Amino acid sequence: MVGRVKALGFSISVDGFGAGPDQSLEHPLGKGGNTLHRWLLGTKTFKTMIGQDGGSDGVDNALAHRLMDGFGAFILGRNMFAHSRGPWPDDGWEGWWGDNPPYHAPTFILTHHAHEPIVMEGGTTFHFVTDGIEAALERARDAAGDLDVKIGGGTSTVRQYLRAGLIDDLHIAFSPVLLGRGEALFEGLDLPALGYRVTESTPTDLATHVMLGREKGS
Amino acid sequence: MVGRVKALGFSISVDGFGAGPDQSLEHPLGKGGNTLHRWLLGTKTFKTMIGQDGGSDGVDNALAHRLMDGFGAFILGRNMFAHSRGPWPDDGWEGWWGDNPPYHAPTFILTHHAHEPIVMEGGTTFHFVTDGIEAALERARDAAGDLDVKIGGGTSTVRQYLRAGLIDDLHIAFSPVLLGRGEALFEGLDLPALGYRVTESTPTDLATHVMLGREKGS
Repeated sequence: MVGRVKALGFSISVDGFGAGPDQSLEHPLGKGGNTLHRWLLGTKTFKTMIGQDGGSDGVDNALAHRLMDGFGAFILGRNMFAHSRGPWPDDGWEGWWGDNPPYHAPTFILTHHAHEPIVMEGGTTFHFVTDGIEAALERARDAAGDLDVKIGGGTSTVRQYLRAGLIDDLHIAFSPVLLGRGEALFEGLDLPALGYRVTESTPTDLATHVMLGREKGS
Repeated sequence: MVGRVKALGFSISVDGFGAGPDQSLEHPLGKGGNTLHRWLLGTKTFKTMIGQDGGSDGVDNALAHRLMDGFGAFILGRNMFAHSRGPWPDDGWEGWWGDNPPYHAPTFILTHHAHEPIVMEGGTTFHFVTDGIEAALERARDAAGDLDVKIGGGTSTVRQYLRAGLIDDLHIAFSPVLLGRGEALFEGLDLPALGYRVTESTPTDLATHVMLGREKGS
């Protein structure tokens, strides 16, 4: 048995953007990008993760729980890991998440610039992959064994894996906001032609959760 | 008092398309385009319109009822009226809707090619406007008096009026389907910069209804 490749909890705006414009250290999701994640930020799962009490239960929370649970490996685009661009600066950057990142598994960072692995607390090791998305997926599958691999984002990374037909399951949360500019998830992608279809659609008060699936071998 | 300019019941797919690809006489909404309108086709309002009994009540039906009710004038793109392109053929075409079209009000068709008005049964007269979207709206407002004007589509027509900031209220029905190709409603439009925001989001089993509004003068 081989695990599946999943991109989950990918929030996009009514006008199709997976992140706001003008990404920066101050706005890691781009301007307005936080409003995309309202369905997630109020859940019990998220609040527990950031050390707060309370939070909502229900569908949003059940989906939030699935975002990080049970994966054997993760793949992230460079911009998900760091705000720097180009050759790695010698600044000791170890990601946005502090000493104990929420991955707790091997995490493969797509980059054009080689970097030594970084071993963090809690089971996360960041590996840097310079030879493309297929190579990264192969290493992630090997590391994950029977468990699933998660494509953690951002938009450009998810788009590349979708275009290659390498994502089995995609969970999109449509948030009722307009962003106007940013990274458009679907632009130029013909998902039905790539074998994808809608398998489920579940609305909540804060988002409409749409599941896309692709049969293996299609 | 002046009526508002509305585009209502504009169904789009998860991947942002307002109609499927390859529009033709056989597929007036493009291939797969009918699946966009599932929320509408089962409603009591729609079934009554096509002479059938039964149909659903509830939110979808209430929104379906608003689609055609109480407008003083309509504006349609050429392709909503006819499948022919270019200079009008001498084929006696009077629209897709038979002798008694569902508009029951003056209906202005945007076209590059002049055509005499066509008086139909039931109060619908088709007028053909060759001098642009602003001129068509001015004529429609004059005809509508205090009543609202509806921009009836298709995608390209709605996009032109949105870009000009001339639509006050837009109701989008997100249907849980993928089309892959077709006319993308939002592509290249920065709606927040044009003054639009989400005013309401109401999910049903068949679609998520999102209302966009623009304050007059914004």
